[in-house]
Order: sequence, then structure tokens, then C-alpha cells
Amino acid sequence: MKPDGGSLIGFGSSGLGGATFKAFDPAKNVQLEPTFLSAGAEDVARAVQLATAAAPVWAKLSGAARNKFLNTIAEKLEIRSAELVARAMQETGLPEARLKGEVTRTAGQLRLYGETAQRGDWVDARIETALPDRKPLPKPDHRSMVRAIGPVVVFGSSNFPFAYSVAGGDVASAFAAGCPVIVKAHPAHPGTSEMVGRLILHAVRECSLPEGTFSLLFDAGFEVGQALVKHPAVKAVGFTGSVKGGRTLTDLAAARPEPIPVYAEMGSVNPVFILPGAIAERAAGMVEGLYASSTVGVGQFCTNPGLIVLQRSPAAEQFAKDMAARLTATLEGVMLTPGIRKNFVANTTARAHQPGVKVLAQGNATSMCSAAPVWFETGAKEFLGNHALSEEIFGPSSLVIWCRDAAEMLTVAHELEGTLTATVHAGAAEAKDQGPLVEILAEKAGRVILNGYPTGLEVSHAQVHGGPYPSTSDGGRSTSVGTRALNRWTRLICYQGFANELLPAELQNTNPLGLARMVNGQVTRDPVA
Amino acid sequence: MKPDGGSLIGFGSSGLGGATFKAFDPAKNVQLEPTFLSAGAEDVARAVQLATAAAPVWAKLSGAARNKFLNTIAEKLEIRSAELVARAMQETGLPEARLKGEVTRTAGQLRLYGETAQRGDWVDARIETALPDRKPLPKPDHRSMVRAIGPVVVFGSSNFPFAYSVAGGDVASAFAAGCPVIVKAHPAHPGTSEMVGRLILHAVRECSLPEGTFSLLFDAGFEVGQALVKHPAVKAVGFTGSVKGGRTLTDLAAARPEPIPVYAEMGSVNPVFILPGAIAERAAGMVEGLYASSTVGVGQFCTNPGLIVLQRSPAAEQFAKDMAARLTATLEGVMLTPGIRKNFVANTTARAHQPGVKVLAQGNATSMCSAAPVWFETGAKEFLGNHALSEEIFGPSSLVIWCRDAAEMLTVAHELEGTLTATVHAGAAEAKDQGPLVEILAEKAGRVILNGYPTGLEVSHAQVHGGPYPSTSDGGRSTSVGTRALNRWTRLICYQGFANELLPAELQNTNPLGLARMVNGQVTRDPVA
Repeated sequence: MKPDGGSLIGFGSSGLGGATFKAFDPAKNVQLEPTFLSAGAEDVARAVQLATAAAPVWAKLSGAARNKFLNTIAEKLEIRSAELVARAMQETGLPEARLKGEVTRTAGQLRLYGETAQRGDWVDARIETALPDRKPLPKPDHRSMVRAIGPVVVFGSSNFPFAYSVAGGDVASAFAAGCPVIVKAHPAHPGTSEMVGRLILHAVRECSLPEGTFSLLFDAGFEVGQALVKHPAVKAVGFTGSVKGGRTLTDLAAARPEPIPVYAEMGSVNPVFILPGAIAERAAGMVEGLYASSTVGVGQFCTNPGLIVLQRSPAAEQFAKDMAARLTATLEGVMLTPGIRKNFVANTTARAHQPGVKVLAQGNATSMCSAAPVWFETGAKEFLGNHALSEEIFGPSSLVIWCRDAAEMLTVAHELEGTLTATVHAGAAEAKDQGPLVEILAEKAGRVILNGYPTGLEVSHAQVHGGPYPSTSDGGRSTSVGTRALNRWTRLICYQGFANELLPAELQNTNPLGLARMVNGQVTRDPVA
Repeated sequence: MKPDGGSLIGFGSSGLGGATFKAFDPAKNVQLEPTFLSAGAEDVARAVQLATAAAPVWAKLSGAARNKFLNTIAEKLEIRSAELVARAMQETGLPEARLKGEVTRTAGQLRLYGETAQRGDWVDARIETALPDRKPLPKPDHRSMVRAIGPVVVFGSSNFPFAYSVAGGDVASAFAAGCPVIVKAHPAHPGTSEMVGRLILHAVRECSLPEGTFSLLFDAGFEVGQALVKHPAVKAVGFTGSVKGGRTLTDLAAARPEPIPVYAEMGSVNPVFILPGAIAERAAGMVEGLYASSTVGVGQFCTNPGLIVLQRSPAAEQFAKDMAARLTATLEGVMLTPGIRKNFVANTTARAHQPGVKVLAQGNATSMCSAAPVWFETGAKEFLGNHALSEEIFGPSSLVIWCRDAAEMLTVAHELEGTLTATVHAGAAEAKDQGPLVEILAEKAGRVILNGYPTGLEVSHAQVHGGPYPSTSDGGRSTSVGTRALNRWTRLICYQGFANELLPAELQNTNPLGLARMVNGQVTRDPVA
């Protein structure tokens, strides 16, 4: 299996379009074959037309059929894992073990979301039975659930070539919810994208699903993505990337004649508050834990811990010194793209010149596309007075904020912007007193972590990967990870006065799918009497 | 209890501000005392400041406490119903029986949403317990639920002075979800608004809730509402009104540095498809049913049936003639405001001049602020070719669309814009064949009705009052009626690695609130072992 460089439009491949581009091997500093062709306006129109035609079929597809499809994709990813990983290693510079693990995770996501679709409880089926004799007015029979929203556009991310790209979390959850998907491939790993896209198309054919279930478009620039978001037949958008990119798409979608939701997972600073007791009890372990969490993937994680909030004390200073020593000795790592590396250098250079900011640790990076950790430190007062210090630096850079005392820590917490995660490290005796800090952080973050680290995101029924703006465009009302992610691709539908046989299976009296449903206010799996 | 004309800012009353205005009795064509004062910028700032201070208290308030508060408001509304209805009759021209019923409905909504808050299942509590020995990585304990989003702004509607105004569905659901609320009163019934607002404040005091739980602001124009939507501390907005008004607010909210959700319930044409079998079996009953649904409240309902789609046949023509006779003989009714009446006259006059459109029935309205039914008819081809005919006319006006056959009916259905409801009337033998029509309508509407009428909205667990754009600003992902309305005022929060005693009660091991929770993928009310 080798990429050939054309967009995948339904079951066809397109060689139309304008600009061409190649993938780039950031470790070897060379371009990779083949040449990829940006999709043209006709490709966009055709992909959306096919998805629109497939949407009604998909809206009626059983959960079991969606599960089968998602499992078929998962299997194919696993079978072709070695080839996929080999290409992704070239395109991203990420190590083999990480990419293998990511394929496994991606297959796991597909299966979990498929299983959720098949089980079907997630549709929130609710039934109110008629009371024809009620006074003053009879009560009509009415039954409701969520239904698929229609064609979805997903933008592949740069930093997870599998788990948040062509067969990643947004795509898997949209399929599981019953929506056709058009992916705009991230130009940093087009070969991996095409290979995964072809596997999805094999699964579409194997499962006898309609053409238009899936398309994959390439673009060297922004035109294709913007055209997709503006297309009247597209009903929702998933995105993982920068605040700037996400906000551009959100603004475009909001300005449409018919606005549509954009679920953009954007920048996040992921603050870590470390209390004196934690340092007293386990400074060495925290150096290791924080080091691992902040350097994994060369810091290119959405949940990379970007702010470290400490109370000044000799022990805390020693902790910071130990941390700095560990960071300074770190070998450089290859970043995903020259552009990301360029931004990292520019942003860390700019931060070094901010008033009141000092370099705490600086690793040594010499290769073309590599980076080593650069950590900074500043005072709480300086942090609170300078908004630039609240901005995410994508890569292995964190900012230590020194507070005078617990009260100043609370002030820093109060002034944080929205973030995906917030972490508290507390000692055994002081943990119980962190209620006020935890409550402030729960206002700022989608996930609050006690005595742990923000990276290493569990894909589960309970996970929340979404927080207040700017960490996500919808302010943390939804999650892009975990089974609640399916609900993003739905809207509500209610049937009133329908004979049983005209209703979707989910709402029929006999409960043929065995769902947990709310019947006249009570949750039950029983049939309606 | 008499209104005094000042905004209610927390526990204080404000006499600041600029322009003044009076309520207007549309039946008697006279202004009503007292003079109302538009709120000023200081009032807006103070109301938001108080709500912001109250928000953390509200976010931690138990469901039982919220239920008690909502029940206290409900009781007060019922006790003072006569006074409230008397003032509302003057301000709206609506008849006593309707307004009494509306107070009862409003109290019922408050109780249903309060009961939902107390029962607590709606928070979607999910628990995944730790697997410390899992390979390759341990699984952390993580638990999630929804939490209150923060201060909410609600715009009172013109057409439901109780059920969608100061203590109406948006306010009740926001309180039930745990949010402080600032209401921007609709200027058409400021006295009713102030009286209801004072009752809410009595309930705030009786329940020992913080100042800032509730404020009520008056405005003769748009400045106060726009300032509220733009205020950085406001986290969500509820609105019921026109597409133009709703879109203005949605655009403002989307353009904020931190965008926030606007749940705007806007225009809706509520098409009714009447099949030949229905006419053959029960034409007379349908004339009565459709007549009642389209004239109730002088047609000023969001769910007023605005498009009537028929297949041409002698029986259908007779049906239309009978309908027209009934409509023409209708006594005029007083509209809510001179402005609404003026728009109704302008819109029906304009429609009468559209190419291919004929007046089907025209009642006789002579009084100042009154309207009588004006129905139009046109062909499917004319309808499909002229977007102006898809626009809602607020008031007692509907457009009959004549189709050649069932296929043309499907074409009309396909081309509909988003709407709150869509209705199908079918005969006994033909109902089972309406799958394709129902499926198209399910794409266009939030609620599909078989052999019923769209008005008369049940407030229940299963209700959906929200459809694709432009019927609602969020495309029908949420509902403004029914217990799912609470979820609009929330976002997700996940706690990872927390000791049991540091978790909210909803997520604690013992399940002290007895919630239905998803524990490791299974829904249960059992404690976590």
C-alpha cells in the first residue's frame, strides 16, 4: 500500500486541483514522494454531494451496522499497522513505539464508539405515553431521541496522525453517530492520511455502505477547508489545532446563512498547582512525573503541562532546580514540522524577553527540525499583569509561576483562561483543604486532576476532553474524547402521535433494541405496556 | 402588588438610566401606568457583578435546594395569579382563561424542572474506576458530570408573558441547572414582568439564596440586551422571538472574544401535509382542528401552522373552501402590540402581491390593534421558486400550497427550511406508506406530528421544542421546552484521581443522592464497590 497523492472522493480518486505539495521528513530534512494534489472546488462539491446523498442512508443505519463498519476499520488499521507506522514515522518524526501505540488506541476508540452505537443507550430515548382522558387537555403520545446531524467535516490534526486524524476520534464518533464524514487531511502527514483513507474506503465497500460515506481531501493551503465549512450541505465540523485556526473556522461557520457547530479543540495551558506538602512528601517522584508528562512527544500534546504554579520555599526552589537539571540534560527531539519548530523557537525567544521572565532550563537543540525543553520562571504578579504569559507555547516549554503563598495561588487560579485540564498536587494532610482551589479550577477546566499528570488521556465513557474557551470553541459543553463525543454529531427529534410501526426501532413499544429508555419519567429497559 | 417601573438589580431597585416607556393596552388603545425606566450601563454592570458573585454558590447548591426555590416561585405565582393575570390582560390583550392557564403551565414547568434537578439523574454522572495494574498503562479513576455554566441572560418573549418570560421555561431551566439569571424584560409587558420578578425575589429571600440569583432589567430599546450579551461574565443566553432579533444576538455572542451559546427560538413555519385519505375520512374534523390551531392566541404561537400542503382534488378544494368559510367568519382578535399588528398587516399585504399567490380567506379586522385571519394559496411551483413564501408571518396567516401529486408534496418537503414542527395528516390506509415523507420532515423539524396539530405543547421529559435553523439558532441540538432544557445551561467536568470525600456528592462512591449513573459502562443506582 503506497499513497498516490490524489484526494479520495467517494470511491473515486481525483487528480484535479491546483497547488501540489509533498510530505516532509523532519528527521532527515528531506521531502517524501509522492506529490500530493490540492483538491479543487469541483472536488469539494463532489465530496459534499456524495456525502449528502449518503446521509439519509446513514441516518437510518442500525447501530449494529455502524459497529460492524467501525470494527472493520479497526481491524484493517491493526493488520496494516506496520506499513502505516513506517510512513507516519517518516512524516512526523515520532518514534515507532509511540505510533504503534497510537494505532492501537485508534482501533480501540473505533471499537468503543462502535460498541456504544450498537448498544444504543446513548440516543437518550424518551417516551411519554398518551393520556387521552386527561383534563383540561389530553396528553399526546410523544417520543424523542437524538438523530444524526448530517454530513460532517473533520480536520486532521498535526500531532496525532492516527488518533485525531483520518480514522481518529472525531471521525469515529461521527460515524458512530450516523454521519457521513469528509476529512480534510493535515498536510504534515498526507501519505499516512491517504493510506488510512484507503482502508476506510475498503471497509465502506466491505460493509456495502454507500459511496459518499467517506471522502478525503488534500490541500496545501486553507481554501479546501474553508470551502467545506462554508458549504450549505455540511452540518458540523470537528477540528483539532491552534486557537487561531479553530477560531477562523468557528467564525466562518457562525457567519453562514445557516450557522453550524464547530467543535474545535484548540490551545490549552494545562496548569499544574503544586502545594508544599506534595513537595515535602514526593519531590523526586514529581520531578520524574512532570518531566515525563512535559517532554512526551516533544511536548506536542494538547494536554502538555504549560504552567507550573509553586509557592516559594527552599524546598520548592530545590524542586525547580532538580527539574531544571533534568530538563537541561534532555536530548533534543524531532518536532512534527519545520513550521511548528519555527513557531516554537519564535515563541520561546519572545517569552525570554518578557519583563520579569527568566529562563529556568534550556536544553540543547542543534538539528534542523529539533527542539529541546525551554522552561521559564516568573512571579505571580508578573504573570497576572501580562496576558502574553497565558498563551500556549506548543512544544516542550513550560512556565513556572512563583507565588508568595496559598492565597496568591488562588489568585493565579482565578485569573486563568479556559483550559482542557488543571492539576493539583497536594500532600496527604493538605489535600482535604483544597476545596476552594479545586472549585476554581473546575470553573476553568474540563478535567481536574489530583496528584496525577494531564497527559495520557483515557478513552472511556467518563472522559472529558473539552474545556472553557479558548481550549474549545464550544466552551466545554462537549468532549472530543470518550463516548459522549458521539452526541456532538446529533440533534433532537420528537415523534408525536405515531403508530408504533411508523416509529424508529429505538422508540417502538416492544423496545426491540433493549435500550435503557426514560418512559413517563422512569428509566427502564422494559417494553411500553 | 403594583409595578413601580424600576429595574430589579439583585435586592435593590434602580431608578437610574435613560429612556422611559410605558406599557400599552392594545385592546383599549391606551398607555398604562407606571412609567418604566430603561436600565443604564451601571445597572447592567451591577446585575452581572451580583450574578457572578452568586454563581459559585449556585454551582454548589443541591438539587433539593433548587427544587425548593422553584416550587416557592411556583406557589407564589399561583397565589398571586389573579393580580398577575389582570395586569397581563391589560398589557397583552390576551383573554383571561388563556392567561390563567398560562400561569398554571408556568408553575407546572417550574415544578417539573425542580423535581428533575432534585432527582439529579439529568447530570449524566459517569464513573470509571481505577485499574492500577492494567498494562501497558494503569487506568486512572475518573468521574464526570455536567455542571452549571454560570450567569445566564434570558430575554422575555412577547407572546407568552408568563411561560416564556420572567419565570418562564428558560429561566426555570437555568435555575434548575444551577445558574443565576438576569432577565431582560420584554417591553410589551413590563408590569407583568416586574410583578413576577418581585415574586422571584421574595422566593430568593425566603430560600436564603444569595443576592444576584436574579435580576430584571428594563429597556425601551436594544442597548441593555446587547450589553448583557457582550458582557464577559455572562456565559449563555436564552431568547424567544424573531429570526432577526435572534440572529443579531447570536452574531454578537459569536463575535465576543470568548464566544458563548445563544439558545434562540426564532421563526418557524410549521408545515402541515394533508393527504387525500385524511380528507376523505375526516375533512370536517380537520377543518375544526386546523382552524383552532391556527387561530389560537390570534395566531401568535411559535408553532402556528403556517404552511398547509395539499394535493389538488375536488375533495381537497372543498376542504379549502370550508376552511376559508370558517376563517372568513372569524371575529377579529387583539394582537399583542401595535408593532406586531403593523408587521402582520405589512407582511400579509406584501404576500398578497406575490406572483401566483391568491387570497384564500380574509377575515374582517377594523379595530386599532386587531387582526383577523388572512390565508393565502399558491402552487407548489410558485412556492418552490420564491423564497419569500417560506418566511413566517407572525399572526393568523397561513399559506395553502397546492401540489399535483404525492411526488410534488415530497419535493415541497425537501425544500423546506428548518422548522420547530412538521405535521402529516394521513388516512388509515395510507399512513403506513408515509415513511419517506416522515423521514424528510424529520430532517427539517424538531417534532413531527401524525394526525395532530402543532400547537398545544406538552411540557414533559420527552418534549423537543427546537429544530434546524432558522427555527432555532443552534440547529435543534437542544430544546427550550421539556426537561432536556436544563442541559443547555451546563458544561462537562471530569475529576481524575480524587479521593472520595473531595468529589461532588453526585460522583461519590456511596451514591448518596441515589442517582442513575454509568459505572464502568453500566447504568446503575448501586454504590461503587
